[in-house]
Amino acid sequence: MADRYKYLKEAACEANLEIPRQNLAIYTFGNVSAIDRAAGVVAIKPSGVPYSELRPADMVLVDLDNRVVEGTKRPSSDTKTHTLLYRHFDTIGGICHTHSTYAVAWAQAMRPIPNLGTTHADHLVTAVPVTEVMSDEMIRGDYEHETGNQILDVFRREKLSPEEVEMVLVAGHGPFTWGKDAAKAVYNAAVLEELARMAYLTLQINPLTPPLKPALIDKHYFRKHGVSAYYGQ
Amino acid sequence: MADRYKYLKEAACEANLEIPRQNLAIYTFGNVSAIDRAAGVVAIKPSGVPYSELRPADMVLVDLDNRVVEGTKRPSSDTKTHTLLYRHFDTIGGICHTHSTYAVAWAQAMRPIPNLGTTHADHLVTAVPVTEVMSDEMIRGDYEHETGNQILDVFRREKLSPEEVEMVLVAGHGPFTWGKDAAKAVYNAAVLEELARMAYLTLQINPLTPPLKPALIDKHYFRKHGVSAYYGQ
Amino acid sequence: MADRYKYLKEAACEANLEIPRQNLAIYTFGNVSAIDRAAGVVAIKPSGVPYSELRPADMVLVDLDNRVVEGTKRPSSDTKTHTLLYRHFDTIGGICHTHSTYAVAWAQAMRPIPNLGTTHADHLVTAVPVTEVMSDEMIRGDYEHETGNQILDVFRREKLSPEEVEMVLVAGHGPFTWGKDAAKAVYNAAVLEELARMAYLTLQINPLTPPLKPALIDKHYFRKHGVSAYYGQ
Amino acid sequence: MADRYKYLKEAACEANLEIPRQNLAIYTFGNVSAIDRAAGVVAIKPSGVPYSELRPADMVLVDLDNRVVEGTKRPSSDTKTHTLLYRHFDTIGGICHTHSTYAVAWAQAMRPIPNLGTTHADHLVTAVPVTEVMSDEMIRGDYEHETGNQILDVFRREKLSPEEVEMVLVAGHGPFTWGKDAAKAVYNAAVLEELARMAYLTLQINPLTPPLKPALIDKHYFRKHGVSAYYGQ
Repeated sequence: MADRYKYLKEAACEANLEIPRQNLAIYTFGNVSAIDRAAGVVAIKPSGVPYSELRPADMVLVDLDNRVVEGTKRPSSDTKTHTLLYRHFDTIGGICHTHSTYAVAWAQAMRPIPNLGTTHADHLVTAVPVTEVMSDEMIRGDYEHETGNQILDVFRREKLSPEEVEMVLVAGHGPFTWGKDAAKAVYNAAVLEELARMAYLTLQINPLTPPLKPALIDKHYFRKHGVSAYYGQ
Repeated sequence: MADRYKYLKEAACEANLEIPRQNLAIYTFGNVSAIDRAAGVVAIKPSGVPYSELRPADMVLVDLDNRVVEGTKRPSSDTKTHTLLYRHFDTIGGICHTHSTYAVAWAQAMRPIPNLGTTHADHLVTAVPVTEVMSDEMIRGDYEHETGNQILDVFRREKLSPEEVEMVLVAGHGPFTWGKDAAKAVYNAAVLEELARMAYLTLQINPLTPPLKPALIDKHYFRKHGVSAYYGQ
Repeated sequence: MADRYKYLKEAACEANLEIPRQNLAIYTFGNVSAIDRAAGVVAIKPSGVPYSELRPADMVLVDLDNRVVEGTKRPSSDTKTHTLLYRHFDTIGGICHTHSTYAVAWAQAMRPIPNLGTTHADHLVTAVPVTEVMSDEMIRGDYEHETGNQILDVFRREKLSPEEVEMVLVAGHGPFTWGKDAAKAVYNAAVLEELARMAYLTLQINPLTPPLKPALIDKHYFRKHGVSAYYGQ
Repeated sequence: MADRYKYLKEAACEANLEIPRQNLAIYTFGNVSAIDRAAGVVAIKPSGVPYSELRPADMVLVDLDNRVVEGTKRPSSDTKTHTLLYRHFDTIGGICHTHSTYAVAWAQAMRPIPNLGTTHADHLVTAVPVTEVMSDEMIRGDYEHETGNQILDVFRREKLSPEEVEMVLVAGHGPFTWGKDAAKAVYNAAVLEELARMAYLTLQINPLTPPLKPALIDKHYFRKHGVSAYYGQ
């Protein structure tokens, strides 16, 4: 039989390799997955493998119930977080989790990243949301599944759309980002790290910096998104 | 017909490629233009094209009324800001807009960058000015044109000369710089980023650091500029 | 006679070369050693030799009483700290000392690095401990030996296990890390630098950030360590 | 006639090229010189020439009265500062001036860099001194000569030896460093930048961090310097 999911494993592998290229994690930290919606199959990074050794054939294929469909390696320990997000955010095609320094710092500080400028507004209109801290029961239960639930909760609570807000901070942990495909998920992880760094510096310079005014946020967001967008080719 | 604006497109393209080389923006952020004053033609980066793919033939030529003169791509979404500046700052030959981290942080904090040392005074005698926040009417109107107007306003209000002050922060957005040609505009963007970083660190070390004394500012500025300059070859 | 300790010198040299690759020190700062437990022989970096010139044959072999066993160069001035740790931490196979910037800053500030997130908890459950400041008598006595004693003291006082906590800050000086071999010791030095940077930024964003809750610390630590670990292959 | 000062121009050029390699300045900022004491001749960087184009033949030779001895280019605008230091610090063989970011920040903040750890004490026992701000008369007079005088003043006032303290911050400007030759002068510039960065971070973590205790300062300094040194080969 031909290698049916070759393109999916290649896309997932290439997106994973962007993590060290964009300096979004050291060593084996972080992971990216890509989904084939028609087949209900996810290609994800194997657990604890260094990026320098990663090849498409190393990608693990799992279904949306976390059963390994193909691959000899153990999938990322965060797999259940990915699959839960795929099940509920039904338009996304890729998910990225990194330990990028500034995004982790905001996640550890348990503070949403405020929308302080047009670089931020070019990508999302709200603050970057941060989840609640998990209860001890959830931690001792199905932890990685519950991590996904914490993300779903904050999106429900703050009435956010995963198509408009493609990034979140898990409190005390770090960022998850997503997008139409795995490449866009990693792009969002790199953008988030830059937004986190800019917001950090801005508040060090002026701790009372207010959020960008709504008209300017909308202007920049809708320059790049929706039917009236006029950015790009 | 020969490619009349070849040199202009090459100069604009080369200056755009300096943005990622000098780490002044990630992905497609930022843009540089170059003007041929005699022809009234501006070569500018196409909107949303990654720097790694940028070639001189991709540059879009527009006139000072923002009409595309040559090129198959859509020009930068910031084109109207560039052309307004070219119309009013009639000695400049190139304009650069970046999202460099420290300059953006000062722009988001809506604070002018004070002149705290000779690295700053080697390039300009004043603080780096910051515009007012735009009114909602202007944002919803001809936004990029109004961005240029905000820049002209702060230069008028603070009686600044665009030949002496080749940089500005647009509040909540980021830096614009310019110079005698596109290469100098990018040079000024890199210098501004370094001045922004030095000023940030200085005020973290000593929040009460006063501006450099006027005699020292003048000494350094006029070592490098004007009839008595004795820096360089 | 064959070169009996060739593998040990190669492992020690390779681990030393990771220091500049991971940006953990400039010039000749820092040193790594590897031990052959059966032979009681330690291979360590020669003192003051630049990393760019370092070759396996330059490694100095010493026994656990600091006597040179092989090698024409003088061993690292920190050799006695290494050998004392090897004598007391009897399961470790390699030791690394760097002057990495953020870890040194915490050591100079004489503050333990609090466990603020899962990146930290993936590697150790406690704060990164910091030694007491040495008495003048100890400094003027057998200084490098006493540096090791300060490390042993803080491990005793805080009831820490060198197998669970593979890193320490020497007050006013900098980090020492270790592991099952020299490569793991340097890995821990790079991880420590990242934890130090993340904790620094977190407390700048929110000075009141509490430590991660115990259930979450345990969850992440035991995902990667011990009989129930399910991270990696 | 043979090229008598070839070695001197090569040493000065090579040391200048270390400035961008060690990230101690952008563009044309900074300059290094080397002296031939027997001949009373100094080789110094030409003013305003980019490092990427710098060749040994571009070095300008001047005598200690600032007269050009050889070379077609104009010497660095800071030449008179160099020659005054050579005249008074009679054991030094090279001088380096950079605009490295953290050292400039301390110079702009007009604060000496306190001796907070052994990385600092490995190189000098005191704080890194900072000059007074220059009077307007001096600025309008022979400015670069007076910059040298400000450095001599702080060494006199604080009873410092240029052999023991090979670095200084000029208030509002930036660092000058020196050493037995031009290579050592640049080494000291890179070390100073790292000390400046470490001290900055340390005081951000703990603003009340005291200086390192005198016994520990002496221990580290005299491990590397003087008759009892035991660091290096």
